[in-house]
Amino acid sequence: MSPARPPGRRPGDADVTRHQILEAARATFAEAGFERATMRAIAGRAGVDPALIHHHFGAKESLFAAAHRLPDPRAALEPILTGPAPGMGERLARFYLQLATTPDSPVVSLFRAAATNDAAARMLREFIEHGLLGTAEDVLPYDRPRLRLALCATHLIGVVFGRSIVAVPEMTEPDVEELVALLAPALERYLTEPL
Amino acid sequence: MSPARPPGRRPGDADVTRHQILEAARATFAEAGFERATMRAIAGRAGVDPALIHHHFGAKESLFAAAHRLPDPRAALEPILTGPAPGMGERLARFYLQLATTPDSPVVSLFRAAATNDAAARMLREFIEHGLLGTAEDVLPYDRPRLRLALCATHLIGVVFGRSIVAVPEMTEPDVEELVALLAPALERYLTEPL
Repeated sequence: MSPARPPGRRPGDADVTRHQILEAARATFAEAGFERATMRAIAGRAGVDPALIHHHFGAKESLFAAAHRLPDPRAALEPILTGPAPGMGERLARFYLQLATTPDSPVVSLFRAAATNDAAARMLREFIEHGLLGTAEDVLPYDRPRLRLALCATHLIGVVFGRSIVAVPEMTEPDVEELVALLAPALERYLTEPL
Repeated sequence: MSPARPPGRRPGDADVTRHQILEAARATFAEAGFERATMRAIAGRAGVDPALIHHHFGAKESLFAAAHRLPDPRAALEPILTGPAPGMGERLARFYLQLATTPDSPVVSLFRAAATNDAAARMLREFIEHGLLGTAEDVLPYDRPRLRLALCATHLIGVVFGRSIVAVPEMTEPDVEELVALLAPALERYLTEPL
């Protein structure tokens, strides 16, 4: 018995704690958006110490990604954007399409929510700004790195819209590798050539 | 007094008739989708003769476009896709962004509806297949014309998603002509170069 321990904390059961943190994170991000959701608020809602969230999930964008069943954006994008320029478009297209074209992809859920709910749109915008474009700003070795990745992201978002939401045959019939081959040159140009 | 005249028809008042037809078309497309909505069904709902719809609006895709405050797809796309190859990407980007980035653009409304409503998604898919990709098939003088325009359309749809729905600063800060300059090379490559 420890009356000082926050309610809901169950030491020794890391899975339950992780689950509580992710539930609290989803709810807090949905209410407050990405920027205004503090690690302290999420910790308070989960009934855990903020240090425990850092221990399990690291930075806020990593927690957001985990709460929405997405890969950590920095860990995923850094090897794509710092590897050799030839192949960068192909690596980015493959990573994104493998993630976004599975049945019930969380990426598609986020897009559907953003299309009709202003709070979800703001949450997605702030995550894109921090998690995706912020990573490009830190690691992509070309001028205007945020704009470069934003141009790629719009193209890829549109492909997923055409494939998974509107289901236009020209986007549903090719398999992922065929789409990668079609898209890679345009993405690589955006990432690495003069804009 | 003419008991044989369908109810609602008001001869001599062309504006009222057009309005009735457009209302009936919107409702019928929303219920039945683009393909299954017949001109006869729309005429029946509007209380007019099918020939009158053809007289006012022409083909079904033209009626769909008018009912959703969009330009006629064939009339708009044909000069873009049959003009000189240099500048084709720029013409397509400018046409689409001028249309889709105005406040309350009907394009954005259609995307929002499609993202959360299966019937709206099917309606949009069938219109894209017939109105947009069908026009490309008929007039674009390169192989795989439908796929070429579909690749452009996904990119442009994603830009509008990033600009008007998610509002990522990298997509909201440039004006339309700056975006046109950024996007035109990728679109022109899709339209005119080997895929």
